[in-house]
Amino acid sequence: MALNPQYEAIGKGFVQQYYALFDDPLQRPNLVNMYNIELSFMTFEGVQLQGSVKIMEKLNALSFQKINRIITAIDSQPMFDGGVFNKCFREVTEKICIVFQADEDPPHAFSQVFVLKPLGNSFFVQHDIFRLGIHDTA
Amino acid sequence: MALNPQYEAIGKGFVQQYYALFDDPLQRPNLVNMYNIELSFMTFEGVQLQGSVKIMEKLNALSFQKINRIITAIDSQPMFDGGVFNKCFREVTEKICIVFQADEDPPHAFSQVFVLKPLGNSFFVQHDIFRLGIHDTA
Repeated sequence: MALNPQYEAIGKGFVQQYYALFDDPLQRPNLVNMYNIELSFMTFEGVQLQGSVKIMEKLNALSFQKINRIITAIDSQPMFDGGVFNKCFREVTEKICIVFQADEDPPHAFSQVFVLKPLGNSFFVQHDIFRLGIHDTA
Repeated sequence: MALNPQYEAIGKGFVQQYYALFDDPLQRPNLVNMYNIELSFMTFEGVQLQGSVKIMEKLNALSFQKINRIITAIDSQPMFDGGVFNKCFREVTEKICIVFQADEDPPHAFSQVFVLKPLGNSFFVQHDIFRLGIHDTA
């Protein structure tokens, strides 16, 4: 399969769609459609997860109720199987509502990387790496 | 090709080898051996480059003379073609020696992502995304 010339539009479209679901606690369970039951890998803060069931257990357990997100950069590259390699830096203000912490959190920076794999006319997330807070003392 | 069970060791070994070359200005030109003449993609601070010649033009033009690096996390995942997907956060103190700036720079945080593609008994960097300074105001 050749390189997909639409990789930038696909990457940006995917990022918008993914975080629209992620940032809304009512919609977050629909992220299951982004992952494959067996062929998706996620590393979440160093914890390795395989398959949409385990990935969704992790994502559904997140206690963020409201997220104000600023995406500062999206880098996409085409892949030789027609997939898209996607790196996204973002800054987020999370309003965390948990029993013992009702205050608003300060903004966090984090970065997330996706490898999108073609499947028919669509894509699924084959690889996903998520890391919070890279501190820059500059 | 199956998943490579050695992916973590490969990922960590690669990161050590890559930055040992990168951080030494005399050795930096040897990074050419990590990239393919045609099949390697790099996105460096948003600039897209393809092939080892253009990638090395960019890397050789960097003016860093001495880099003190602290790698804070390496996340690796196996890929279904036997490759390794590798995300590396690192903090760096760069001592930049250029004509109009002889002072030491403050530490910078940045993150870099590699997709390693198997080639015979070895690997090359098929995808490389590099971004400086994600600020965390927390």
